[in-house]
Amino acid sequence: MTTDGEETRQTANQETVRRLISTEPVLIDVCPAIEAVPGFQPNTILTSGAPMPWEDVVGGQREAVIGAARYEGLGVDRAEVIKRLDSGDIDLRACSDLHCVGSVAGVYSASMPVFVVEDAKSGDRAFCNLYEGSSPRRLNYGCYDEEVQVRLEWIRDQLGPTMRSLISAIGPLELAPIMSRALHMGDELHSRNNAACLLFLAAVLDRAGGLSESAVLPALAEVVSDQYFFLRLSMAAAKCMADRAHGVADSSVVTAMAISCNGFGIRVSGLGDQWFTGPPPLFQGHFFDGFTEEDVSWMGGESIMAETVGLGGFAQAAAPALQKYQGGSVSAMVERNLQMYSITVGEHTHFRIPYLDYRGAPVGIDIFKVVETGVTPVMDAGLAGRSGGQIGAGVVRAPLECFEAACAAYRDAHPMMS
Amino acid sequence: MTTDGEETRQTANQETVRRLISTEPVLIDVCPAIEAVPGFQPNTILTSGAPMPWEDVVGGQREAVIGAARYEGLGVDRAEVIKRLDSGDIDLRACSDLHCVGSVAGVYSASMPVFVVEDAKSGDRAFCNLYEGSSPRRLNYGCYDEEVQVRLEWIRDQLGPTMRSLISAIGPLELAPIMSRALHMGDELHSRNNAACLLFLAAVLDRAGGLSESAVLPALAEVVSDQYFFLRLSMAAAKCMADRAHGVADSSVVTAMAISCNGFGIRVSGLGDQWFTGPPPLFQGHFFDGFTEEDVSWMGGESIMAETVGLGGFAQAAAPALQKYQGGSVSAMVERNLQMYSITVGEHTHFRIPYLDYRGAPVGIDIFKVVETGVTPVMDAGLAGRSGGQIGAGVVRAPLECFEAACAAYRDAHPMMS
Repeated sequence: MTTDGEETRQTANQETVRRLISTEPVLIDVCPAIEAVPGFQPNTILTSGAPMPWEDVVGGQREAVIGAARYEGLGVDRAEVIKRLDSGDIDLRACSDLHCVGSVAGVYSASMPVFVVEDAKSGDRAFCNLYEGSSPRRLNYGCYDEEVQVRLEWIRDQLGPTMRSLISAIGPLELAPIMSRALHMGDELHSRNNAACLLFLAAVLDRAGGLSESAVLPALAEVVSDQYFFLRLSMAAAKCMADRAHGVADSSVVTAMAISCNGFGIRVSGLGDQWFTGPPPLFQGHFFDGFTEEDVSWMGGESIMAETVGLGGFAQAAAPALQKYQGGSVSAMVERNLQMYSITVGEHTHFRIPYLDYRGAPVGIDIFKVVETGVTPVMDAGLAGRSGGQIGAGVVRAPLECFEAACAAYRDAHPMMS
Repeated sequence: MTTDGEETRQTANQETVRRLISTEPVLIDVCPAIEAVPGFQPNTILTSGAPMPWEDVVGGQREAVIGAARYEGLGVDRAEVIKRLDSGDIDLRACSDLHCVGSVAGVYSASMPVFVVEDAKSGDRAFCNLYEGSSPRRLNYGCYDEEVQVRLEWIRDQLGPTMRSLISAIGPLELAPIMSRALHMGDELHSRNNAACLLFLAAVLDRAGGLSESAVLPALAEVVSDQYFFLRLSMAAAKCMADRAHGVADSSVVTAMAISCNGFGIRVSGLGDQWFTGPPPLFQGHFFDGFTEEDVSWMGGESIMAETVGLGGFAQAAAPALQKYQGGSVSAMVERNLQMYSITVGEHTHFRIPYLDYRGAPVGIDIFKVVETGVTPVMDAGLAGRSGGQIGAGVVRAPLECFEAACAAYRDAHPMMS
């Protein structure tokens, strides 16, 4: 690359990170996807990963899509749902197409409530649907049965409306301050959200003077007692930040990472809506009792949006309590975290890591740095099993191929720079 | 020491730590000291430190005692209060005499509400009065004026009764589980209690189904928003644990550490009610703007009961966020924490430090190990100023002299062992 080209790229990368860091994600509403998400149709189903045609959707992710369509009543039975997916009557799209972000299979249907997160400055919005709960059998892990359906109906009919009236009563809630503080309390906001849940609770109570007569607070307490509740807010906030950082001309910074049943994909700020894909990521972690590597099934995952903005694996040293969950040691976590500074172009100004003497989290993954160093992004993740459900947890590494493909595309798009 | 004597001592020390660790502190009530604390009289004033006569109480601690007596109406004016203290009409005693534990000057008067913490197994109780709030001008920092008085009245008339009805409604609240979890969320439960405050809130909400119609929850939220609220519960729990560990024959384990205006004191499990005193501790930390070492005034402090049971400085590696408050670095904190294993006889089984790969906190300070290694206990502390108020925060080290005196007394009491 020429010196001029290199300078242009560096400037663009700094601007990308500046936009990302300066985003002010605010929770403004909780309501059905069809009401909140521009472009969502009654027959829309979203799923995780780089956009792909229905015929490429296999395994647990396929089951999750079918389950979401059945749950939404987009067919009288499984056979009809599959027929309508085959024919295109059901409009299957990628979460990212509609500023949504998906957990594991990441399926959305029209009636599912979503967190609506808005950047206070630009008004840009991102969305994430709600956590299904701690049962290993969840729609997003490819399971759909009566128990799953009942839980989804509770989320739609009880939890969603309760959350909506809560937010309506207390007003818009800034998420970045909660996230910054949670990093000082042992969370990395991907696999661990314990502190953020409690800080969310405290923030609500702090503004809930007139709410105590209603049933809102006990309901909220019940939700927050589930230590993954905040993850969906963290994901929506991260999506809001990453989308704000997307579209900076000449930038080689990654603005989305996503897993699907077919592998790993990334999107780059300066390379438009193109996705660069590779094989599934490499898993290092531990399996829950009775499961082995043979049971692993990749069925999607976009919670790694957290890593895209400097959280999760990129702030692992903030969350030493994860070592047990992930089967590793603290020193390994710190080492992995430090490694991420070699592939990023900035350090976060308000997401800081106490154990690294309050150094800002590494942020802004540069595709060229990844390829030059051979160091790929480290991500905290739950692991799905072939027969559905979560079967393990740990750390995954992105495959190098996506970054190589993105670098090649960048060079093609910038012939003057080469 | 003979081999037999050494074996007897080691066995006694293990028993001491076993008792300490197996204590199950439960918050059972919040009520006025005179109602809760056996032996508390209407004219009793308690203060921090090894027991000492009134004429030895000087500086800010003297001001705090006078202030507490005036607040309690034990004289029509300052002059009368001093006269009654001089004559012994006002009964000045050490907090430790009545199973209480004092913050800084540690003054208690009869009407002040206290947390009542009971060991679920033995029924033994310990007490701590309530946090005055974040103003640098507090009675416990030697300040007494109308503002301080109004705040104390609010605690007595509003906060205390509110807390009492809350605990009465939800039932006894186990503190050890909250403390264990807080250590995984960046607290060391002395200078940092942020997570414990939120966990307390969550525990209350979890059991507060029927409470929402009252004003209890908003009041509680207000209190818990003050990040030192839980410290007094941590102190009472620590006092309960340490008192349970006191009185094991032949044990050389420290069961109390306390600061007064005259210096540092310790009590030892196997050496009865005798205190061993030395000069004030050495301060390493940072001063708030405008203050220097010259402004320091030692006016007492028993929050170091936390360190006596394996918290605070003994769990510093759990709380990297304290580095700013204390003006140090994470590596210094970890190093100090690791040093404490060389002067303790056990590792806590449920107070564990994630950053040390979940190693149990060092617990059970052995006076002989301190003297042999020359390593003295490290304690997290706020610092009081000559003219009242808090003027800094950091780490203090206990003076070696107390431990030398205790070792000499131990040898005197165990001539057969020498």
